[in-house]
Amino acid sequence: MKRDRLNSISLNHIRINDSFWNRYTSLVSDKILPYQWEILNDRVEGAEKSHCIRNFEIAAGRAAGEFHGFVFQDTDLAKWIEAAAYTLSFFHNNTLQDTVDAAIELIAAAQSPDGYINTYFTVKEPKGRFKNLSEGHELYTAGHMMEAAVAYYEVTGKDRFLKIMCKMADLLCDVFNSEEYENAVPGHQEVEIGLIKLYRVTGERKYLDLAKAFIDRRGTKPNYLATEKLKPDWIDVFHNPDPFIPEYAQCDEPVRMQKTARGHAVRAVYMYSAMADLAYEYDDEELLTVCKTLYDDITCKQMYITGGIGQSGLYERFTVDYDLPNDRNYSETCASIGLALFCRRMAQITHEEKYLSTMETALYNTVLAGVSLDGESFFYVNPLEVWPDNLIPYTSLAHIKPVRQKWFPCACCPPNIARTLASLGEYVLFTDDDSLWINMYVGCQCETKLGGVPVTLTVESGLPFAGKALVKVHATEPFEGRLMLRIPEYTSDCRIRCDCGGEIRECGVAKGGVYQEIPLTYKGDGEYDMSVMLDFEMPARFIYANSRVQADAGKVAVVKGPVVYAAEEIDNGRDLSEFIVDTGMGIQEEYDTDLMGGCMTLTLSGYRQVSTDKSVLYGTRPPETVSAKLKLIPYAYWNNRGIGEMRVWIRHM
Amino acid sequence: MKRDRLNSISLNHIRINDSFWNRYTSLVSDKILPYQWEILNDRVEGAEKSHCIRNFEIAAGRAAGEFHGFVFQDTDLAKWIEAAAYTLSFFHNNTLQDTVDAAIELIAAAQSPDGYINTYFTVKEPKGRFKNLSEGHELYTAGHMMEAAVAYYEVTGKDRFLKIMCKMADLLCDVFNSEEYENAVPGHQEVEIGLIKLYRVTGERKYLDLAKAFIDRRGTKPNYLATEKLKPDWIDVFHNPDPFIPEYAQCDEPVRMQKTARGHAVRAVYMYSAMADLAYEYDDEELLTVCKTLYDDITCKQMYITGGIGQSGLYERFTVDYDLPNDRNYSETCASIGLALFCRRMAQITHEEKYLSTMETALYNTVLAGVSLDGESFFYVNPLEVWPDNLIPYTSLAHIKPVRQKWFPCACCPPNIARTLASLGEYVLFTDDDSLWINMYVGCQCETKLGGVPVTLTVESGLPFAGKALVKVHATEPFEGRLMLRIPEYTSDCRIRCDCGGEIRECGVAKGGVYQEIPLTYKGDGEYDMSVMLDFEMPARFIYANSRVQADAGKVAVVKGPVVYAAEEIDNGRDLSEFIVDTGMGIQEEYDTDLMGGCMTLTLSGYRQVSTDKSVLYGTRPPETVSAKLKLIPYAYWNNRGIGEMRVWIRHM
Repeated sequence: MKRDRLNSISLNHIRINDSFWNRYTSLVSDKILPYQWEILNDRVEGAEKSHCIRNFEIAAGRAAGEFHGFVFQDTDLAKWIEAAAYTLSFFHNNTLQDTVDAAIELIAAAQSPDGYINTYFTVKEPKGRFKNLSEGHELYTAGHMMEAAVAYYEVTGKDRFLKIMCKMADLLCDVFNSEEYENAVPGHQEVEIGLIKLYRVTGERKYLDLAKAFIDRRGTKPNYLATEKLKPDWIDVFHNPDPFIPEYAQCDEPVRMQKTARGHAVRAVYMYSAMADLAYEYDDEELLTVCKTLYDDITCKQMYITGGIGQSGLYERFTVDYDLPNDRNYSETCASIGLALFCRRMAQITHEEKYLSTMETALYNTVLAGVSLDGESFFYVNPLEVWPDNLIPYTSLAHIKPVRQKWFPCACCPPNIARTLASLGEYVLFTDDDSLWINMYVGCQCETKLGGVPVTLTVESGLPFAGKALVKVHATEPFEGRLMLRIPEYTSDCRIRCDCGGEIRECGVAKGGVYQEIPLTYKGDGEYDMSVMLDFEMPARFIYANSRVQADAGKVAVVKGPVVYAAEEIDNGRDLSEFIVDTGMGIQEEYDTDLMGGCMTLTLSGYRQVSTDKSVLYGTRPPETVSAKLKLIPYAYWNNRGIGEMRVWIRHM
Repeated sequence: MKRDRLNSISLNHIRINDSFWNRYTSLVSDKILPYQWEILNDRVEGAEKSHCIRNFEIAAGRAAGEFHGFVFQDTDLAKWIEAAAYTLSFFHNNTLQDTVDAAIELIAAAQSPDGYINTYFTVKEPKGRFKNLSEGHELYTAGHMMEAAVAYYEVTGKDRFLKIMCKMADLLCDVFNSEEYENAVPGHQEVEIGLIKLYRVTGERKYLDLAKAFIDRRGTKPNYLATEKLKPDWIDVFHNPDPFIPEYAQCDEPVRMQKTARGHAVRAVYMYSAMADLAYEYDDEELLTVCKTLYDDITCKQMYITGGIGQSGLYERFTVDYDLPNDRNYSETCASIGLALFCRRMAQITHEEKYLSTMETALYNTVLAGVSLDGESFFYVNPLEVWPDNLIPYTSLAHIKPVRQKWFPCACCPPNIARTLASLGEYVLFTDDDSLWINMYVGCQCETKLGGVPVTLTVESGLPFAGKALVKVHATEPFEGRLMLRIPEYTSDCRIRCDCGGEIRECGVAKGGVYQEIPLTYKGDGEYDMSVMLDFEMPARFIYANSRVQADAGKVAVVKGPVVYAAEEIDNGRDLSEFIVDTGMGIQEEYDTDLMGGCMTLTLSGYRQVSTDKSVLYGTRPPETVSAKLKLIPYAYWNNRGIGEMRVWIRHM
C-alpha cells in the first residue's frame, strides 16, 4: 500500500510573516534577484562576468560571439527564474514578471527545433551533445531548467516555459531510452528531480520512468560514465588530468547497494532527493531503505553540526565517517540546500521528525551563512573555523574565503540560496487530507483545506531566539481534522496550551523529537477559532561531538534551539583557540537589539591560556591561565562585521 | 675582518661508531645505495620507473628512446653519486667505486661539447636550454651534479667528474654573465650551493661570483622569472594553469629585504644555505643578518617541533607565522635536510649553539622519519598527526601517505636522505686551527690536527636515549688547544668531569644552550690522554607550543633530549584524540631492548574521553572519562610496525 505522502503548501497559499525570516525573503525580492539579474547580464562592475544571458542570446541568434563561462552556465538563469517564480508568489511585481517572461522567450528562441536547449553545446560544441555526460552537465542543466519551468507554472499558471522543457524532456526520453544510451546516466545528478517535478504537473509517466531508469542504471555494469571516454566521438570538456573517479559521481556500485554517502556532496544529495521521490512514486520500500541508510550515514557520521556536508576541500566531496575537520572543509552551501531538499522529502514520506531537524539545522545555519545580511555577498564554502591569515592562494586552504564574495566564476550557490529562501513556504508546513503539519515555527498565514473545508492557519513565532509560538486555526464550517505540531528535537520540554473559543486547556508537556497531535473538531456553526500556545524549553546548550570525531576532541559547540553559535574575533580578540570554556559556569543569554538588526548573543565563562613569552615557539612552560569571557553570535551571522577569526568548536575544561 | 669559520672534518678522517647512527649509515651502504641503483636502472619490480640511467644513456647516444621522468630526473643520479661518495669514506668497496666511475663515464658521454649536461633538454628539448628557468630546473640539476662531483673528488681524489662539472660551470658563467641573462636567476635554488662548493675545491673565483650574482639579482626588477614567459622562445615545461607566483620562488622582493621565510620550503632553505656561505666568503654582514632573521622566522614562528618546515600541502610551501597544522602539512623530508644544511652553515660562521639545536632536531626527527628502519621505504611528506582512514586520493589530504613508499615519481627525498646520512660526519664535529667543536654527541673516531699537532678524538655516546657521553683526546706531541663541547639546549644541567692522566677533575655543571670550553694543554712528552665525561640531565619533558599556534592549543608534545615522541595506534588503540594526559603525573621512561632494535619508550598517564553512545554524532552528554595510559615511541620510528594512527601533540588537562 502506498505511503501517505505529506504535501507542501502551494506557495500561492502561504505568506511568510516572520521577523527573522522576512529579512531574508525581502532580501531575495529587493536585492538578490535584481542584483543577480544585473550579474547575469554582465552589468555589475567589478564582479565576475557571468555571460549567462549573452550565451542564450548567441544561441538564439540574437547576438554574435562565443560561449563563455562554465559548461553549466545556463543553470544560473534557471535558478534565477526559479527563485523569481517563488518570489512572485509573495511579491507581486509586474516588472519582475515581465523580466522573467522575456527571459523565457529568450530561452524559447535558443531552443533547437528538436527541443534541445543548452547554450554551451548549441554554441560551442554542437557535435558534442550527450558525448561527455561525466563532464558536460547537460542533464544537470536540463534538470534545473525543468525545476524553474515547473515553479513558474505553479506560481503564475503560465505554461510557456513548461512546454519548452517538456519538449526537452521528450527529447531526453527519446535519447536515453535508445539503445546507444541504454546504460547512460547523468554525470551530475539533478535531472531526476526535474523530471519528477515535470511528471507531477503534467502526469506524463515517461518522465518519471526516465528518472527511475537513471537511478536504477547508476553504478551498474557496464559503467557508462567510466567508459564513455573510449567512445570515438567523446569530447573533452574539463581537460582534467585526473582519471574519472566513479565514487565521486556515486556510480562505483549500484545505487541500491550504497550504504555510505560518498563522492561529490551536491551530486549525492540531489540524487538522494530524487530517490526519496521515486521511493514514494513507485512504492519502493527497498529504495526508501537505501535513503534511510544514507541519511543515517550522513547525520550520524559525516555531517557538521551546522548541517554542512562534503568534508574535502578538494573535489567538494564526502570523505570518511567521523572525518570532520573544521578549518579546511568544503561544506558547500549548495550541498546543505540539497540536504534540506532530501530531508524534506524524507519527512513527507516517513512523517519522522528527525528529518525536519536536520533540514532545519541546514537552513538556519549553513544556508543562511551563505548570504550576508545585506544580501550582497555569498559564501560558497562554509568552514567552522576560520583564521584569515592562513587563507592564502595556492595553498591547501585556497578554497576557503574569509569574507563573502560578490559572485563566483562557478556561481551555483548564490541563486540556489535565492530559490531556497523564496520557497521557504514549502518547508514550513505540510498538509494531507485532514491534517496540518507544522514543521518549522515560522510566522506565516496559510489558506488550505481540511476535510474539504477551507481553513486559515496563522503562525506567530519567536523562534529561533525565543521559544514561543502561537498556532491559530480559523474556519467557518464544521470539520474534523488535526494539527500535527512538530516538537523539535532541541526542545527538552514543550508546554502546550489550547484556547478553543476562550476556554484554555493545558495539553501537557511534550518531549522533543515527535509530532504532537492536536485534534481539531468543529461541529457548530459560525466562526471557529482555535489557538495553540507552545512554550519550548530551549536554553542554550553545550554540545559534544562523538569522541571518534578527532577534530572536535576536547571541544564543545554551543546551540540554542536550531541555531549554532560561533565566536568571532571582533567580539573576542584574535587567537580564539586560546579560549577554554568552563562548562560548569553556564551560558549567559542576552538579546541584543542593536547587533546586526537584533540577535540573541551568548556569553561563555572560562579562561584564556596565553603564552607568557610570545617569542618562543616551543617551551616547557605551560601557558598562563587568565579569566576570560567569550561572546558568541549565530554562526549564520558571522563575517557581517568585517574580516576576522571565527570558530564554532571551543575548547572546554 | 672576516669571521672565523669552523670547518667540517673531511669524511676521510672521521669514522662514525655509534649504536644509534650506525644502524642508519649501514642502511645506506648495505641497502639504500644498492636498492636505489637498481631503481635508477629500472630493475625493481613494482616500483615506479625512474628511467634516470636510461635518460643518460639516450643522451650519450648509447641507447635509443625518449626521455622519461621529471625535468629534474638527473638529480636522482647526482644525489646517488653524492651519497655513494660519502659512503666510500667509510665503506671501502671496489664494486661501489667501479659503479660510480662507470656512472661518471656515462655522464661524461652525455655531456655536450660545450659542457652542457642535462638529459631532459639534451634529449627532449634541445632548443629549450635556459628558456624556462622557472620550471626547467636546469640550474637546480647542475647544482646537485656539482655537489656530487665535489663529494666524489674530496673522498676519492678522482677529478674526472669534477672536471666535467667545471666545464658545465664555465658554460653557466658564460651564459649567465651575458647580456641576455644579466637578470636571470635559477627557478629552483641549489646551483648556488654547487658553485660555492666548486669554488672551494678549485679556487675558481667566477663560480663564487656567479653564486653571489644569483642571490643579488633575485627579486630585483625586472623580475626575470616572472617575465621570461613573454620571451618569444619560451617553452612550456609543466603546463601548469596557475600563474607564476613570485613568492613561491622567493623572488617577490630582493633577497636582502626578505624577513620571513616564504614560498617553496626546499627552495628557501637551499637558498638560505648559499646565502650563509656567501655571507662568510664575502664577509657580508648584511647578508648574514638576513640569514639570522630568516632563521628566527622559521624557528620561532613556522617550524614544527620535529624540525619539519613547509606547512601547505599544496605547493610544498611556507604559509604564515604560527600556522602549523599537524594533519595536513607537507613538511617535506628534503626541506628538513635543507634546514639542517642551513643551520650547519650558520653555526660554522656564528658559533652559536641554537643553530645546532635546530639542525639536530631536523636530523633526529624529520630526516630519520623519512626512512624506514629496514631502509626499504621512505616518507616524502611528514605530518605530525595521521589518521589513515581519511587519507584518500583526490581529497585535500591526498598528499599524505599513511605508510612509507618504495619510491616516488618525484624521487627527491630518498637519495637526499641517503646523502645526508652518509655525510653525518660533517655535522657532528667542527674544527678550527686550535679547537675541536663537538656539535652532536655521536660515537666516532676522528683524526685531525690542533695547532698543527695530530690528535685523535674519540667520542662515545649514549644519546639520544641516555644522557651520557665520553670525549677523549689523544696526542703524542706537545700542543695547546681547546675542546668546545656543545651543551645542548635540551639539557637542564650537564655535569662535566675531566680525566687527564688519571686525575679526575670536576669541571662544573653547565646549563644548556652554549659551548663549554675545556682547555687542552700538553707540555710534556709521550702519550697524552684526556677524557671528558658528560652527564646530561635530560629527562623526558612536556613541551607547550606558543599559544598563537592554533593547532596545538590545549596540547603537549613530549621530547627527551633531541628526540620528539609520538603515540601510535599499535600501542594505544585507535582514536588517539580521545586521550588526555595529566601532565602532573609525570612521564615514565623505559628502554625496550626488543622494540624496533632497542628504543626508549615513554608512558603518559591520563584519561580517555569516550562517547557513551557511539551512535550519536552530536549530543549534550559529555564523553565518559576513564583512566588510561599512553605509550610513546620516537617520532622517527613511527610506521615501522604497520599502518595506523599516529600523533605527536596530545591533549592535556
